[in-house]
Amino acid sequence: MGRASAVITLTTDFGLLDPYAGQLKGALLTGCPDATIIDITHAIPAWDVVTAAVTIRTSYAFFPRSTVHLIVVDPGVGSQRAILAATGGGHFFVAPDNGILSLLVLDHKIETIHRVEHPDFFAAGVSPTFHGRDIMAPVAAALAQGTRLDHVGPPLAPADIKMAIVPATVAAAGCLQGQVLRIDHFGNVRTSIRAGGGRFDPTCFGFLEIGDQQIAQLVRTYNEAQSGTLFVLIDSSGYLEIAANQASAAQMIGCSVGDPITVHLVQK
Amino acid sequence: MGRASAVITLTTDFGLLDPYAGQLKGALLTGCPDATIIDITHAIPAWDVVTAAVTIRTSYAFFPRSTVHLIVVDPGVGSQRAILAATGGGHFFVAPDNGILSLLVLDHKIETIHRVEHPDFFAAGVSPTFHGRDIMAPVAAALAQGTRLDHVGPPLAPADIKMAIVPATVAAAGCLQGQVLRIDHFGNVRTSIRAGGGRFDPTCFGFLEIGDQQIAQLVRTYNEAQSGTLFVLIDSSGYLEIAANQASAAQMIGCSVGDPITVHLVQK
Amino acid sequence: MGRASAVITLTTDFGLLDPYAGQLKGALLTGCPDATIIDITHAIPAWDVVTAAVTIRTSYAFFPRSTVHLIVVDPGVGSQRAILAATGGGHFFVAPDNGILSLLVLDHKIETIHRVEHPDFFAAGVSPTFHGRDIMAPVAAALAQGTRLDHVGPPLAPADIKMAIVPATVAAAGCLQGQVLRIDHFGNVRTSIRAGGGRFDPTCFGFLEIGDQQIAQLVRTYNEAQSGTLFVLIDSSGYLEIAANQASAAQMIGCSVGDPITVHLVQK
Repeated sequence: MGRASAVITLTTDFGLLDPYAGQLKGALLTGCPDATIIDITHAIPAWDVVTAAVTIRTSYAFFPRSTVHLIVVDPGVGSQRAILAATGGGHFFVAPDNGILSLLVLDHKIETIHRVEHPDFFAAGVSPTFHGRDIMAPVAAALAQGTRLDHVGPPLAPADIKMAIVPATVAAAGCLQGQVLRIDHFGNVRTSIRAGGGRFDPTCFGFLEIGDQQIAQLVRTYNEAQSGTLFVLIDSSGYLEIAANQASAAQMIGCSVGDPITVHLVQK
Repeated sequence: MGRASAVITLTTDFGLLDPYAGQLKGALLTGCPDATIIDITHAIPAWDVVTAAVTIRTSYAFFPRSTVHLIVVDPGVGSQRAILAATGGGHFFVAPDNGILSLLVLDHKIETIHRVEHPDFFAAGVSPTFHGRDIMAPVAAALAQGTRLDHVGPPLAPADIKMAIVPATVAAAGCLQGQVLRIDHFGNVRTSIRAGGGRFDPTCFGFLEIGDQQIAQLVRTYNEAQSGTLFVLIDSSGYLEIAANQASAAQMIGCSVGDPITVHLVQK
Repeated sequence: MGRASAVITLTTDFGLLDPYAGQLKGALLTGCPDATIIDITHAIPAWDVVTAAVTIRTSYAFFPRSTVHLIVVDPGVGSQRAILAATGGGHFFVAPDNGILSLLVLDHKIETIHRVEHPDFFAAGVSPTFHGRDIMAPVAAALAQGTRLDHVGPPLAPADIKMAIVPATVAAAGCLQGQVLRIDHFGNVRTSIRAGGGRFDPTCFGFLEIGDQQIAQLVRTYNEAQSGTLFVLIDSSGYLEIAANQASAAQMIGCSVGDPITVHLVQK
């Protein structure tokens, strides 16, 4: 059957109430008629660059090599902020230079970054308010068609791109301090504390503190715990998560994004 | 043009706010790069196995033969519940063994069921909380690529799978008793009473009772009735539906999922 | 690689909570197995023909030539209202005859319209409540497969189709009067006043009046204005839009769809 068609993923704050995501896909198919276009999500909170950065960091690797990931959360649209095209591990990324790609850089997943400049790849009439459709989509389509990165513009040093400021995990005496990063639609509470990689060793877990709750139960799967009790597990992206079995942990705790959490460690 | 690409449908309770559906699609494309992936819905209420079972029962047959239907509503993820791969009428189905496929079995639509066991088809690192992405998607992709069912695990007797408990239609003296199964986003009230097939003969319809409402008008299409009046029709899946013309029947009645309904019959 | 697969877009009021959009896609793939199906939106407000007409007018041109656009907002389903198949500029359109295509006709974008009549293209059992799935999707799939328009039914004169009544722009002494057409999920306020084409010349802009607000700032891009201030720009579809930088203009103004706006002009 020859080469499989190119895959292009989308991560945006467009929502699905408006036709913006559809128009973007039209632009992608105009540039790359064989593309398979996949929505990662269009529900990034409006202008929330950090959530976009976290989402692409935890999702891109499930796609085949050669996938082009287009991430459009672009509060600076029309300004002089740059547009980036990058590659690493066989994947490609196109996004505004506002921090979206910075976590991939911190994770050492990016090998090469170029600044998108050559207008050959732009739409005929670029709207100053929708660069996602008129610049980034045509560039993503060109990369999906095999265009080389150095054709879209000059290289940039990773140190020269904008960084997103994300909640850090702070190691204090006998504990780790982090934050609630995201509450998913099941009510699971995703945190900024990552398991493994030198950050947090699950075998040293004592208990987790959030608000006035202390949660000592660490399980592998949701249904190891009694229905309706709070517990902690390693989520499917490798981060510490607070959950309940078939219940909303976020509602039970009454917590919000940004709330501090503390993991108390024990000596092995 | 050779063989058309394989179609894989998705029915889940993931919603679209989180990147879970996107990650699942990445896993599908990794296993089957040519797949055409179609969302049936990601809006099954969280952990609601019965709604998932009803949805796949009423939707799968609109797809071409050879389609692989992946249904992930999985409150037992990570436990010892089995994962099923099944076939019938040229379609394929992958789902947890929690009742999702049981209505297809009751309808005699399933010919063969296998229990997914061979880890060859699993992702390299299986997350204990996301078998949809790490086990079921790779198996669905393998089936879409032509893998035979007996390669994924041993056969099971249909009688050995878990059944979903769905509201039954009970025949009483001169009437049928059922329930509200689902309220759609137009406010149409879908019920558990199916037309034809020996269950309910529309020519015997007298009137329908729900709460303190009695509805005697049976029409073929929404706009046969006066705007704003309640009526009954056979919905596009073959079930009795209570509706109004360009108005929300559910709001007019004030009913909820699970509310009892009675259809009073007349002698022909 | 031969001919790229056919593109079919969808614009409906089905929402994503129910499996209707999924069933429609099944019908499309049954008729055209190689189709690339793209959602423009399923969030047209229920039965809102005008919003559907505005959406397809502003979105279709971003897709490649030969795309088939299927628009299903169909309050008259099952009645004697016609179903239309049309072409213009290399694009194809299928929709009920209820005004959805009328703005394209007014814009002189449609060259030929046919009334869908030949049942060869219909599904085996047509549900009287879901012509989108059982008639329009099979016809759209046939067009995507290369079926000629005159095979689906007899031609119609553009003057014979139903028109949608849309808010007009009225020129009064030194001003233009229009309406709020749509509020997007960022809170941007889209209006009925189109820039260019003889309708509104941005260089003559004095100030815009909505409710008790007067907005004199006309910018090119969102971030030219101070954060939190109201301003006017030309949106990515070419219409006058009221917006704020990273804030909801609609909330700041307290306006709704249908509210009148006045643009005061100055002499050049």
